[in-house]
Amino acid sequence: MNMTHGDLDCMNRALQLAELGMYTTTPNPRVGCVIVAENGDRVGDGYHLRAGQGHAEVNALAMAGLKARGATVYVTLEPCNHQGRTGPCSQSLIDAGVAEVVYGMQDPNPLVAGQGLQRLRDAGITVRGPLLEEQAKALNPGFIKRMRTGRPYVRCKLAMSLDGRTAMASGESQWITGSHAREDVQKLRARSCSIITGAGTVLADNPALTVRSPALGEHPRQPLRVVVDSQLRTPLDATILHDSTHTAFACAQDVNQHGKAAAWPLRQHNTTQVDLRALIEALGNKQHNEVLIEAGPTLAGAFLQAGLVDEIVVYMAGKLMGSTGKPLFELPISQMSQNIALNIIQIQPVGADWRIVAIPHNTLDPLNPPLSE
Amino acid sequence: MNMTHGDLDCMNRALQLAELGMYTTTPNPRVGCVIVAENGDRVGDGYHLRAGQGHAEVNALAMAGLKARGATVYVTLEPCNHQGRTGPCSQSLIDAGVAEVVYGMQDPNPLVAGQGLQRLRDAGITVRGPLLEEQAKALNPGFIKRMRTGRPYVRCKLAMSLDGRTAMASGESQWITGSHAREDVQKLRARSCSIITGAGTVLADNPALTVRSPALGEHPRQPLRVVVDSQLRTPLDATILHDSTHTAFACAQDVNQHGKAAAWPLRQHNTTQVDLRALIEALGNKQHNEVLIEAGPTLAGAFLQAGLVDEIVVYMAGKLMGSTGKPLFELPISQMSQNIALNIIQIQPVGADWRIVAIPHNTLDPLNPPLSE
Repeated sequence: MNMTHGDLDCMNRALQLAELGMYTTTPNPRVGCVIVAENGDRVGDGYHLRAGQGHAEVNALAMAGLKARGATVYVTLEPCNHQGRTGPCSQSLIDAGVAEVVYGMQDPNPLVAGQGLQRLRDAGITVRGPLLEEQAKALNPGFIKRMRTGRPYVRCKLAMSLDGRTAMASGESQWITGSHAREDVQKLRARSCSIITGAGTVLADNPALTVRSPALGEHPRQPLRVVVDSQLRTPLDATILHDSTHTAFACAQDVNQHGKAAAWPLRQHNTTQVDLRALIEALGNKQHNEVLIEAGPTLAGAFLQAGLVDEIVVYMAGKLMGSTGKPLFELPISQMSQNIALNIIQIQPVGADWRIVAIPHNTLDPLNPPLSE
Repeated sequence: MNMTHGDLDCMNRALQLAELGMYTTTPNPRVGCVIVAENGDRVGDGYHLRAGQGHAEVNALAMAGLKARGATVYVTLEPCNHQGRTGPCSQSLIDAGVAEVVYGMQDPNPLVAGQGLQRLRDAGITVRGPLLEEQAKALNPGFIKRMRTGRPYVRCKLAMSLDGRTAMASGESQWITGSHAREDVQKLRARSCSIITGAGTVLADNPALTVRSPALGEHPRQPLRVVVDSQLRTPLDATILHDSTHTAFACAQDVNQHGKAAAWPLRQHNTTQVDLRALIEALGNKQHNEVLIEAGPTLAGAFLQAGLVDEIVVYMAGKLMGSTGKPLFELPISQMSQNIALNIIQIQPVGADWRIVAIPHNTLDPLNPPLSE
């Protein structure tokens, strides 16, 4: 497509606007929109904040008012073509009389992809794109994966020493990383729909697993906490059972109601272990876009070996915890040929620690998954 | 000090010139020199190539000829003030009639530091500096440490997976990292005066531990190979005993002459284990500036625990080798409070792998060590 510096600037701004919905839009995608009038003035900014409220295009059109006529619209995601409470966005753009629409990426749902753009074209609107598609996709790994596979995007977060240890042999692990890394984890939690942990972690650390960063607002949306607890070992006085945030238990046998907070017991009959794939699929059915695993090496290793982890985020501290400490993942591999290959796509400093982001090869390309497996 | 962009440019060039001696100057330091005439023309470039040949200043003066009169001289290290084969550099600069000397760092030997500069000042030459001192120090970690402590700068190189494993339980470890990382290791070897390994590594891998990169020339200087082999388990048909490069053995008891290549047996009586500190001191006595440890986790861990490692260089591959693999360092630590703290000062991609450089807190600041311990 032909594009100018002005196009790039406007789409970059639309991407930034979309990020303002990072912690709130779910199960909808994060979308941003910028409207530039015929005379070059930016007349409308919009983003999607929360499901049930206006889409990015509608919000930007409302700001632009009559100046939207003849304007160019930059939107990070193809405008929807389905009937919502206010009609499809494609029709809103047509009604507003815009001249041109530049889009970041097509709708990830293969059943409707391109339909919104076609409706615009049919109405005589010039359509250009995709523009900054990679960045547009990076906004919504979970929404994209779920639209294409029915399953959420699964991120596994770990903290380790340079020598790959996540705890001492005794289980002692507080604190491996510093405050900046822990603040970064708050953002990972806040963007997730659910946080999976294991009964072992609950027993050892009694964590809250809540979003509680002042930077993320006073009453942030709290992800559902899911405890993989095949034998229901979680004690009734665990912290996660005694606050206002929901917790679900995935167990291998019939589950007993686990106090007030066991809002959504996932029952899996006829197994002695929790079926992790079924758990992830159940979260997808609940329209969870992004799932965060914060668990010990055994459960994290089981998810990884099952090919269920889309992204590994490791916070690495500048220390050596020694050769008797606990491993990063419990993975019984005996030959080099059995290694699990990864793409390490990013290493960045976070305070005194380093954040490493890696994509396992044994998962599907999460942003370009095949339509069926 | 007052400095201009021109000063920075010239000192940067002098630093680059010094690097041309990276693999050859030992036991002397790497030094570069740039001479700028009164009219602003750069009239002399010089660097030290090899012990016994001209110092950087002398080479640059030779290029500048009569144009050195009234010139400004940029030199990465304080000009020497001692009698060599051609007289001290400070006198050469005076004789050439230069007007000004800008230096990168003072002589690291506290017994002579500042004497060269004083002699220049006494002759009426303007002296400015230090300029880009950190970079100047980074050129010569080994020379600086040896001048100040008598011991070499010890670098420990390791290759690991993201989960901190250096080999499978079976010992299988080829290849953890890719060709770019292995080429990078060639540079670490080439800049070192000796490479320390353990008998276990010799028995398991039968390595050559030579410099053999086409990028480093046809006949590169080969570091001395030192095998820590307390019980002399190295087999007589080991590769390191059958090439033209020297090998020394550090053993706990009287050493037997180990074939032709055992040029320098280090005898340590009255111990059952090799005294690693004594070994490092012996290498310092041999004027070794930089020493590279390429060993398994047991020996590397022993050097580290003894506080003898100044720098850790880890090549990290994008793979998981699993929880039964060998550790980065054999370090029996049972409590978080016993962790070995590190400064991770650099993480950079090297091909598909990542190079991590870390400085243990339990070593002395190698570039600013105290004068005595």
